[in-house]
Amino acid sequence: MKKYSFGIDVGGTTVKCGLFTAEGELLEKWEIKTRLEDNGGNILSDIAAAINQKILEKQLDKDDVAGVGIGIPGPVDENGEVPFAVNLHWGHVYIEKDLSALTGLPVKAANDANVAALGELWKGGGSGYHSMILVTLGTGVGGGVIINDRIVAGSHGAGGEIGHAHVDDSIEETCNCGNRGCLEQVASATGIVRLAREALAGTDAPSKMRVDDLTAKDVWDAVKEDDALAIQVAERFGTYLGKALATLATVTDPQIIVIGGGVSKAGQVLLDYVTEPFQKYAFPAIKGTEFSLATLGNDAGIYGAAKMVL
Amino acid sequence: MKKYSFGIDVGGTTVKCGLFTAEGELLEKWEIKTRLEDNGGNILSDIAAAINQKILEKQLDKDDVAGVGIGIPGPVDENGEVPFAVNLHWGHVYIEKDLSALTGLPVKAANDANVAALGELWKGGGSGYHSMILVTLGTGVGGGVIINDRIVAGSHGAGGEIGHAHVDDSIEETCNCGNRGCLEQVASATGIVRLAREALAGTDAPSKMRVDDLTAKDVWDAVKEDDALAIQVAERFGTYLGKALATLATVTDPQIIVIGGGVSKAGQVLLDYVTEPFQKYAFPAIKGTEFSLATLGNDAGIYGAAKMVL
Repeated sequence: MKKYSFGIDVGGTTVKCGLFTAEGELLEKWEIKTRLEDNGGNILSDIAAAINQKILEKQLDKDDVAGVGIGIPGPVDENGEVPFAVNLHWGHVYIEKDLSALTGLPVKAANDANVAALGELWKGGGSGYHSMILVTLGTGVGGGVIINDRIVAGSHGAGGEIGHAHVDDSIEETCNCGNRGCLEQVASATGIVRLAREALAGTDAPSKMRVDDLTAKDVWDAVKEDDALAIQVAERFGTYLGKALATLATVTDPQIIVIGGGVSKAGQVLLDYVTEPFQKYAFPAIKGTEFSLATLGNDAGIYGAAKMVL
Repeated sequence: MKKYSFGIDVGGTTVKCGLFTAEGELLEKWEIKTRLEDNGGNILSDIAAAINQKILEKQLDKDDVAGVGIGIPGPVDENGEVPFAVNLHWGHVYIEKDLSALTGLPVKAANDANVAALGELWKGGGSGYHSMILVTLGTGVGGGVIINDRIVAGSHGAGGEIGHAHVDDSIEETCNCGNRGCLEQVASATGIVRLAREALAGTDAPSKMRVDDLTAKDVWDAVKEDDALAIQVAERFGTYLGKALATLATVTDPQIIVIGGGVSKAGQVLLDYVTEPFQKYAFPAIKGTEFSLATLGNDAGIYGAAKMVL
């Protein structure tokens, strides 16, 4: 039985690193800079140096280390290769093979959103469960599907792309993905502001949402103060998200649905607006599917990454 | 290496039985009656008798038989137990344990639609692939999801209930499941007739669909003869199904989508009406997902059942 593992979460600005026990205790957490120059050619060697240095510093025996899990902002195929990762300026990278050679440790790589889902399943909002849908509501809408403790990576690396489920035929603006009418366009932080602006433009009624530089937080704060127009926005948001989750759960049938990302800081009130439409549209056998909020915040990625090699 | 396995597909009228080689050759296929009296209490012993008799008849060595796979028209939980199966008049049945005791062979049970999906993956329209969505268009709409060669059974036994994905808010009639606006209501044989009747009622234009006792086959025959109104119906059907599959594939990201069931006998023309909207609504990375028609027909269940124990 191995005693330790490393969890690495690579972002476009920083790389988050964690040293974990096999039981999931986070012993140490630190960050290094993501160096994008030279097509991101230093990123893996920087990570390897950070790991090797930590092993020396902590006087760990490499034989006690299960390996290195790593989450990447891009698709990761079945062979542990990254075909491209725009935010890291990467073309094709043999990430598992190369990082393993640099560290002398087994390496397992996956898409960062999927890895975060595994983290929430292990030690966060889905702890104790084995199948889960995670949806993260941030600048965009991401997510991951876990079935029987395993990430659904997808045959094109697109597993868990919940934000790009089609939910509305009437949206004419183009999503970042190039399609129109994606969940991300109505349920991300930006999407909620979009719904709020539409509601505000449609009436002269007073509203706490009539502020400069309206944010998703402003909308949820107004909901909590019983602002009638904000409640309409929350209902529309909840219907989009609850209905989409109902369809996805009708097919993947998870034990629990976990909602994370910056928008989820609104808390229980957000879950309330999502679960009612979910229950309306879900297949009867799954209407009782549990919901919870993510609890690991930005650490979900390092937790999930560490778990991948345990 | 075991040489043989049995695949059993239990229906409300007959039980289909198959004896297979480990390579997937169907050596013999036969049927027995499904006896529903006494709360279906004879079904398992009838199946066991049929298997034991076949082993004797073929002079098989039980040590050469991998086991018995069995598909059930109802949910099957993770412990191989059936909580209920309305069409078999069953309450809670310990199917794997009981049938194993009766045959002296390992038994693996799963929901029949999911088992059929595994069959199509093994030797049918999805042969050579490892992840697949099967959708069967018959009296109802069923289906199964396979990821990395494994059935997604679901935590409430509802995995793959594609027919009950919500697709239309405007349908007021209730689906068999109790919800409104399910895919089954617009994409099953009955659903296609519903769409056709709506189209016919909305105009006085001539159409080859103006016949007594209109069937889904009549609609597709009219499509093939360039009937303008039938083409409208096919487009509406294709948009409902293609859009729903796009959402499901955006999250499960299979290698191939296979369409089966009686309605799929319409052939390639049906795929054409589905793939265009699929490509419009699917996440860009998966727009190239392959489509094919199921090829095993009513034998998909025995193939998939036999595969479960190999």
